[in-house]
Amino acid sequence: MQKESGVSLYLKTVTLRDPDDLDIILDDIRQHNILIIRVTPLAQKSLEDLKMVVEEIYKFVKSINGDIARLGEERLVITPPGVKIWKNLYENVKDDR
Amino acid sequence: MQKESGVSLYLKTVTLRDPDDLDIILDDIRQHNILIIRVTPLAQKSLEDLKMVVEEIYKFVKSINGDIARLGEERLVITPPGVKIWKNLYENVKDDR
Repeated sequence: MQKESGVSLYLKTVTLRDPDDLDIILDDIRQHNILIIRVTPLAQKSLEDLKMVVEEIYKFVKSINGDIARLGEERLVITPPGVKIWKNLYENVKDDR
Repeated sequence: MQKESGVSLYLKTVTLRDPDDLDIILDDIRQHNILIIRVTPLAQKSLEDLKMVVEEIYKFVKSINGDIARLGEERLVITPPGVKIWKNLYENVKDDR
């Protein structure tokens, strides 16, 4: 897809199916995309792999000053530096976790 | 919440429970936040109300050159001008709709 004029950021939805998807996801984060990652497919295969991958993602996001949060049971949201996730305790705890 | 230095955009998760929530959501869009809206609570009450609210949101987002997409069965994503939702047909159709 060509970048459109005036567009400075992309929001992408991706699916985590396999530990090997980690590299693609880190690359997307490196390119400062906003990511919504559906983690359920990997969670259903191996919770251990999921834990390892999420830890790697978490460390990388923190190292570039990005932000990360859970979105419901199935997804993670990741934002690049300059985009902050609004931590609304009520929303997160009561509705979306 | 205070704006942090260097942060130019916020990503907020909100829940649509009632048609009256429309005003708050339009206000959030107007302030150029990225929104992830969980629509299930209103969908369970009235599909007719949901349809009306989503149409209003859609019209407003288009009028300000924002972007909008479904995220799974439960959520909508809305981005302000300058943030484009990467339309990945495979992801959207096979996984996330």
